[in-house]
Amino acid sequence: MLEDKNQQRTSLEALGEFGLIDHLTQNFKLKQPSSLVGVGDDAAVMDYKGQKTVVSTDMLVEGVHFDLSYMPLKHLGYKSVMVNLSDIYAMNAIATQVTVSLAVSNRFPLEALEEFYEGVALACELYKVDLVGGDTTSSNKGLIISVTAIGAADENDIVYRKGSKPNDLLVVTGDVGGAYLGLQVLEREKEVFKVNPNSQPDLEPYSYIVERQLKPESRKDMVELLQKLEVKPTAMIDISDGLSSEILHLCKQSEVGCNLFEDKIPLDPTVISTCEEFKMDSTMVALSGGEDYELLFTIDQADFPKIKANPNLTVIGHMTQQSEGVHLITRAETKIPITAQGWNSFNE
Amino acid sequence: MLEDKNQQRTSLEALGEFGLIDHLTQNFKLKQPSSLVGVGDDAAVMDYKGQKTVVSTDMLVEGVHFDLSYMPLKHLGYKSVMVNLSDIYAMNAIATQVTVSLAVSNRFPLEALEEFYEGVALACELYKVDLVGGDTTSSNKGLIISVTAIGAADENDIVYRKGSKPNDLLVVTGDVGGAYLGLQVLEREKEVFKVNPNSQPDLEPYSYIVERQLKPESRKDMVELLQKLEVKPTAMIDISDGLSSEILHLCKQSEVGCNLFEDKIPLDPTVISTCEEFKMDSTMVALSGGEDYELLFTIDQADFPKIKANPNLTVIGHMTQQSEGVHLITRAETKIPITAQGWNSFNE
Repeated sequence: MLEDKNQQRTSLEALGEFGLIDHLTQNFKLKQPSSLVGVGDDAAVMDYKGQKTVVSTDMLVEGVHFDLSYMPLKHLGYKSVMVNLSDIYAMNAIATQVTVSLAVSNRFPLEALEEFYEGVALACELYKVDLVGGDTTSSNKGLIISVTAIGAADENDIVYRKGSKPNDLLVVTGDVGGAYLGLQVLEREKEVFKVNPNSQPDLEPYSYIVERQLKPESRKDMVELLQKLEVKPTAMIDISDGLSSEILHLCKQSEVGCNLFEDKIPLDPTVISTCEEFKMDSTMVALSGGEDYELLFTIDQADFPKIKANPNLTVIGHMTQQSEGVHLITRAETKIPITAQGWNSFNE
Repeated sequence: MLEDKNQQRTSLEALGEFGLIDHLTQNFKLKQPSSLVGVGDDAAVMDYKGQKTVVSTDMLVEGVHFDLSYMPLKHLGYKSVMVNLSDIYAMNAIATQVTVSLAVSNRFPLEALEEFYEGVALACELYKVDLVGGDTTSSNKGLIISVTAIGAADENDIVYRKGSKPNDLLVVTGDVGGAYLGLQVLEREKEVFKVNPNSQPDLEPYSYIVERQLKPESRKDMVELLQKLEVKPTAMIDISDGLSSEILHLCKQSEVGCNLFEDKIPLDPTVISTCEEFKMDSTMVALSGGEDYELLFTIDQADFPKIKANPNLTVIGHMTQQSEGVHLITRAETKIPITAQGWNSFNE
């Protein structure tokens, strides 16, 4: 599907582990005031000056979380950072540093890793985080990425998954379901390509959802917006595994129930049209799709006037007593229990 | 070589990702004052109360860094934490938290991961660190482990790789070369086992070096000892890749040279006898072996009286002007340039 642009190929053996890390990270400069020492010693050193420190980590595995036949390495580097920053923003904190570790088989030339780090660098630049560490080693098969993100926040600003109260409003940023559908389009094109390697896919009609899959953004802007609007969510989580699974996490940890209104779920027009094309139910896609990296949070009803005018924030339901359970209220006004349909990487 | 004790086998699919993380981490309690929130939210939350934060990360890959045919999973869990804590101690800091992520193929039953986490738990308990996060996902092949360790220190206590001055003494903790030789013994027994699966290896004569390989300790005790002795090293690094490679790191970053005295290098008697058996040069093993996780540091000569009586600390050389280069002074008083012989995982 993708043209091989690696005209030049430098083998990883030639550089070795030390040379490789030095080479890949040489252009990363520390910009955060909290970053004192980055790559190059036994550990990085940070100073959060009395703020609380927030840490999250995620692993991405080739063939499980991504497919290099349609995922450009630069995008993959960008997305690996986004996935982790998203967890920091979901704490209502601001991300400040990342460490990026790779296990990579010898089939990757140096130039491929350079592309990956270009994506890491772009993410660091746009989201103002510093790369302060990592490890590079060989794998027997494929590429495995492990990112740890660190952020800082004042104690009073941190928002957990617990804290929702009955009658709180359930709010989602942006729209959902796009990343999952983008993956379906890319998988379909991959099958077409297998049959006819000369086919040129026309992804233009799907550009929004394909970008949601290949180059997602995390919602730092929404954390900043909420601060500007003077709204502190009562609970928050990011949408990595699908709306239904995240709602269940909030409900379980906050010990509340929830009514989610089907007609309120924000869907991009491309999601609706592609669902029709794929004969998929758009609500199911939104509930179970995953990888949208939007924020899902609850607010006190008193805060509703502050957010109601904002096109990025959609009220999609409200919390209830725990005994009332977790339900989807359909367009036909029937009440369907929500169960976790989230993605489980151990099911193949 | 090892008896299969997994009578009970629970498949990972049955638990799924969320159930798995919950299950594996349910018995981990937070004990560090700096750990506010551990596993279970989007991120862990820590409070270092004005201390500097020190972060390091490492990846371990099956077939590259470890071989499950002789590495029990509990030991592997323990060692994975040790490898990372060692980097924190090498900053003269005290480790406080770890995150542990696993990518694991479906061939591992739940009970295998439980064993791994038993080792993680033991390491956390003995070294007083909290497990505060991690990720568990599937891999296409084998087991990949990514650990991030976090520590704290007052700014004035932190020791970097740079800071050595000419005439500083070069000091190593414990003894070196054992972990590498332990690996040679285990590899030999593995070959024997392949030929005759009924053979019972007698590892007793090698117990010290086999334990150095399978269940290494990191030198928190030495960081505490140096504090008690009121010695602040001028530069420090941990020995993960072999003495020669670590000396070169100190010299490069401190912009100094070094004379290392062959006859001063501390070797356990088992290392000497096993080197004879394997017809290996013990100095080469000490220089290039790796995985000892001892600390290598330099001190001002004025501090020598404070350390000289301690059997855990051995002066093995002194630093020089950078222009004099980095040399091994042999028993025959010849001067041999030291070059990096450290381990490169990309060479197969």
